[in-house]
Formats: sequence, structure tokens, C-alpha cells
Amino acid sequence: MTEKTTVESKPKIDKGLDDVYVKESSICLVDGVRGRLLYRGWDIRDLAEHSSFEETVYILIHGRLPTRAELAEAKQAFAENRAIGPEVVKLLRCMPKDAPPIDVLRTAVSYVSNFDKERDDPTRGANMRKAQRLIGKFPTLVATAQRIREGKRPVAPDPSRGIAEDFLRMLTGKKPDRLSAKVLDVALILHADHSMNASAFAATVAASTLADLYSTMVAAIATLKGPLHGGANEAALKTMLAIGKPENAESYVLNTLRNHGKIFGFGHRVYKTWDPRALILRDYARQLSELRGQQDLFHVAEIVQDTVVRELSAKQIYPNVDFYSGLTYHLLGIPTDLFTPIFAISRVSGWTAHVIEYWEDNRLVRPLDYYVGPTDNVYVPIDQRA
Amino acid sequence: MTEKTTVESKPKIDKGLDDVYVKESSICLVDGVRGRLLYRGWDIRDLAEHSSFEETVYILIHGRLPTRAELAEAKQAFAENRAIGPEVVKLLRCMPKDAPPIDVLRTAVSYVSNFDKERDDPTRGANMRKAQRLIGKFPTLVATAQRIREGKRPVAPDPSRGIAEDFLRMLTGKKPDRLSAKVLDVALILHADHSMNASAFAATVAASTLADLYSTMVAAIATLKGPLHGGANEAALKTMLAIGKPENAESYVLNTLRNHGKIFGFGHRVYKTWDPRALILRDYARQLSELRGQQDLFHVAEIVQDTVVRELSAKQIYPNVDFYSGLTYHLLGIPTDLFTPIFAISRVSGWTAHVIEYWEDNRLVRPLDYYVGPTDNVYVPIDQRA
Repeated sequence: MTEKTTVESKPKIDKGLDDVYVKESSICLVDGVRGRLLYRGWDIRDLAEHSSFEETVYILIHGRLPTRAELAEAKQAFAENRAIGPEVVKLLRCMPKDAPPIDVLRTAVSYVSNFDKERDDPTRGANMRKAQRLIGKFPTLVATAQRIREGKRPVAPDPSRGIAEDFLRMLTGKKPDRLSAKVLDVALILHADHSMNASAFAATVAASTLADLYSTMVAAIATLKGPLHGGANEAALKTMLAIGKPENAESYVLNTLRNHGKIFGFGHRVYKTWDPRALILRDYARQLSELRGQQDLFHVAEIVQDTVVRELSAKQIYPNVDFYSGLTYHLLGIPTDLFTPIFAISRVSGWTAHVIEYWEDNRLVRPLDYYVGPTDNVYVPIDQRA
Repeated sequence: MTEKTTVESKPKIDKGLDDVYVKESSICLVDGVRGRLLYRGWDIRDLAEHSSFEETVYILIHGRLPTRAELAEAKQAFAENRAIGPEVVKLLRCMPKDAPPIDVLRTAVSYVSNFDKERDDPTRGANMRKAQRLIGKFPTLVATAQRIREGKRPVAPDPSRGIAEDFLRMLTGKKPDRLSAKVLDVALILHADHSMNASAFAATVAASTLADLYSTMVAAIATLKGPLHGGANEAALKTMLAIGKPENAESYVLNTLRNHGKIFGFGHRVYKTWDPRALILRDYARQLSELRGQQDLFHVAEIVQDTVVRELSAKQIYPNVDFYSGLTYHLLGIPTDLFTPIFAISRVSGWTAHVIEYWEDNRLVRPLDYYVGPTDNVYVPIDQRA
């Protein structure tokens, strides 16, 4: 385990940790061969059809289906925790108008921890309650920051509504139509977890030092910001908008592939077939596009999808969730730079589940780097340097 | 690389990543066998004796000794960047008085990124400038937050002074004596980097998604907070203070060992001999204890050290840097809960060096977890659940 000065034989360097298992987990199975995604053993197709985001969060954190009473209690807890104090609103008002919303969320979550009396209580019970508070507050923080940025009055949360519906209401100031609320609820279900992705892993590394739960979530948000993680759906939408008309879509894809360019929203390190989340969101995006009279954009997406699949499915490249989530959020009228914060509103549930699971058998994460620099430099006094 | 549903043979689980090399690096060599620590090939014993924190930062980031002109320019940049704007002071005033200073620093760094026009510029040049800004601002953020917490007026930075001296001046409101300034400068040199520790690794994971440099530093601070990482020197000091008198020290150690208790500040995953940083700080702690007339506390430390080494050196257990750094900061009159923020004031230099190096050949960090949960749970409608 010691790092040696003498280079005898170079060890294997696991850059990216592609094939490294960092823990056992019973939270999430990504079955990239069969194109299945399970939370605690339940198929997300069933959850998207029959469940709600609140119930999905319960399943992720507790590992079982709630009874009616347990679900009511959990919904109540999320709803009560949705409120943010005046000092947090004041902080959000201190943010420059041009601050990226994901940076605002990161700062606000870091700040809001100050007001949780259980912040540094490391017991499992306290962490479960802190998870509820975090999951409750994320939508309010994102919606309130956006209202302030737009120069509008913040809309207080309504505890009688579900997370997805209330988020859209706090964001727009009006009750969303039934389809929009359902679509966002499904999108939140589909993004709630995805095993040891970069942000969940950053949270785990922070957790391994026994930092508090809020700190681990701040590390996760910081990591989600990167365009290689949270930003891919923005890029996919931008491509669709740039193509504009269905009749331009096929030639755009063929030209891009011919020039070895990248089409965003396709391919995945784990999925070697259709990403089940993409298929579900595609159907909802179609319904939304009809409701909004924006069928052209949906047809662009379909043709891009069909062309890429036709050309690249032999290489196991299919649309992933990002291809349809950006389009879905756009059709919901959500500004592009809120896509990653909405990802966080959902994923905070998986992050907290992973951290709480890791703490059941904690071990400090302390990898090695392989030193390839000089070992015997001489300190030369400054007046003798060349 | 796909995660399989069928458990054919359980893979190796690298929990803690103890023996996993995550990158090549030419920044820092921890030679745990010979008890040496090198930054870019220079021995920290030479740097502690002859260099300054500013020059050490230059070496860490640029990989070479600066000329006189380059060092003057770097010092100038750190000094100019030491100022924080009125909006940042306002944020610090919004922090509850009982907020842990490391949480305040994490929030402030997250916030301060909003005011950097180059925040999302991913070029190497921009990142080098952002590193200078971060290294410049950390001492001011920590000192200003502490002044506000104590109900005192913040002290503006003085660009004509070095980082260590100016930090003590901003913290206390008066020019420190020469020994105190030198001791803190050496402590900052000794903590500036330590290869792939948990906080540097969390920063690297965040960086691997191409999140901006500020985000990676926020992830690092969040990780440093944990008592298994940044908090060990506090625990070591508390032991010394609890022992109180030199004549109680030996029996305290022997009793603790007999009861299989832990003595904080001893042993290290990498060092199997004396931690060279502990030896350097011990000498400065002795000098400070004489200057302050607190020799008793230093003698307690010495007797604890001698007793543990006598009893446990056969098991390769020796004092590590935390054993003497907490004592040193205490003798400098620094409140205990500022120890971890001071660690960050120093380590931000190593963190930025590691992130900038990682981006030269970036790869997304996306490990696996090994799924051990159920795979075929049936979704039961809520009115049919037991």
C-alpha cells in the first residue's frame, strides 16, 4: 500500500474506475444488456406507470413499498419540508442574475444546512429525516431562485400538492395542466437513481470522511454541474432546435456522422440497447408536443433517433435518457439552464439513499496516484536560480 | 463493463480504493517507508526551512522553482486576489453565529464563484488564474467570517504582507510576532498537498464531469469537513488538553492502550515511520510553547508521543502531522473549529494542482457498484398491500 520511490513495475492505472466495484449495493440495478433499470428490485417501467415520485423516493430510501399510511406520512413530510425560511430567500436574492441556476442550488443547499439542528447528528434516524428535508426543499429552492431571477414574486409551496405539480406551480405561478404534472412526475421517477454515477460517487467519497449529509449533497451537486454528467440533455435539445425542421433531420445526422461528429443523447457506458427511460419519455414527449402544437420538434427528434439507430445500432448505440428529457422539459416550458437543477431535484433521492447505505459499513475512500515525477530535486536559493 | 443480473462470480470489491491507482501524477510523492514527502520532487524539509507558502504553491502548480521575478509576480497575484467584495461580506454576515466555520467557507466559496467572469472558461490559462484567486481569497474568507462571528469589525487584507502573516493579522486585528507568522507559514507549506487523499479525490471526481474549478473546490471542502479527514488534529488537541498535566500523560496513554482505546494523531495508511511533517511541527510547537509560557502542554504532547512510540513502534505506529498541528494552532491562539478551515487555506493549492493536472487528460470517473438486491419485485397496487 505504500507508494514507492523506486519504479519497479508500473501498476495498473484505473483511470475513470470503469471496471472497479466500489461497494455492494441493493439500491439500483442497471441491466445494460436487457435494457432494464430496477430500483430496489422494482422495474422503473412499473413505477413510471403506477407510482409517484414520492412513493419512488420511499422505495429508494426504505427498500420496500409503503403502506397507504406510510405513504401519506412520507408525502406529508416532503410537503412540510418544502417551505424555506426568509433568510434563505434573502440569500437567493443576493445571487447575481447571471449566476447559473445549478450554482445557485449548490450555494443554497450549502447555506440551508446552517438551519438544521440535526445537521451534525450522524445517527441513521437523523439522516433519514435530513434526507426528507433535502428532498422537500430542492424544488422550492430551484423554483424560488428562478422567480427571483425573472424579477417575479416567489410562490410559496402548497403542501396539499405533489412535488412535481407543486414545482411547476411555484415556477410558473399557475396550476399546471394534468399532463404536464404527470410528465414531470414521471421524469423525476426516471432520474431518481442510476447506481454509482459520478455525482453519487462524489457524495460517497465525501460521506466516507463522515462529513454530514448536507456536505455530501453539496459535493454531488458540484459534480452534477459538469457537461459530461448533468449537461447532456441541454446539448441534445440544442441539436434538435438547430435542425428545426423534420425535413432537415436525416441529412443533418448523416452529415454529422460522415464528419465523425457527435450526436448528443446517444450511447451509454452501461446500456448496450434501448435505455428504458428514453422509451418512456419519448411517449410523453409525443403527447406533450401534440398538446402544445409543437409536433415539428418531436418529429425532428424521431427522425434523428431513427437515423442514428439505423446507422449505429450495430455498434450498440441507441438513444439514452438525455435525448428525450431535454425535449420533454422544453415542451413543459422550462428554461434550458434549469434542466440540471431539475435533475438534482430528482437525483437527491438516490444520492441520499447511497450515502445512508454507505454509512452502514463506512470505509474512508483514499485511493493512490502513481507518482511519475522527479524524486531528488535540489532546492536552489532564489539568487542562484537561472 | 455492463452490470449483470445473474450473479455468476462475485467480483472484487475495492471499498475504500486502498490499493487502486486512479491516475498518474507528478505532483506529490508520499514515501511512507523512508518518511519523506516530496512536492514536485522537492523535499518538504527543504521547503519548510528555506521557502515560503507562496513559493511552495508556485512549485506545486507550475512544477518548478520560480525566478525572483516570477515569485514576485505570483505573490502580487495572491495579494491582489485576497480582497473580497462587499456582497461576499454581506453573505458572511447572513451566516448564523453557530454555523461551523468549515460550512461557512464551503458556502462562501460556492457563492464567490458567481463573481468570477472566467468561472466557466475551461482553458488552462483561465484555470491557473482561478487557482490564484481561490488561493488568495481563502484566508480572507476564513478570517472575515471569524471576525463577524466574534462581533468584531472585519480587517481588510494588506497586500504588502505574506499569506500566513496577513491571515493572522486579519484574524486577530494585530500584527503577529515573527515566530507566529513563520510557524503558520511552515504549517501551510506542510499541508499544501498529500497526493490522492479523500478531498483531492472528491475534487477530481467533480472535475472529471468538466464541472468548473470552483465546483471542484466546493466538493473538496465538503469532503475535508469529515472528522476522518480534516478533524483529526482537533481530536488530538482535545486529548492533550484533557490530560492537562505532564505527570498524567504516561498513565493516560497506557490506560487507553490497555482498554484498546484510540490515541488520536498516531498511525497513517501510508507512513510506516515518522511522518516528516510531525517532526518539523514538533520543533516549532516547542518554540511557541516557550514563547507563550505553555510548556506544560508541550510536555504532555512529548510524553504522549514517547509513550506511544515506545509501546507501538513495533507496529509501525508513529505520530502523524495531526498530532502536532492541532497543538501548534492552539499555541498560535487559533480557535479549535478553525483548524479545518486553515487546512483548506493550505490544501486548496494541492487541490487546484491535482484538478488542473487531471484535466490535461480527462476521463469521467464512473465506477460500478455490485448489486446484491432483489431483481424481480412485483409492483402491488397500494390497496392490496399488507
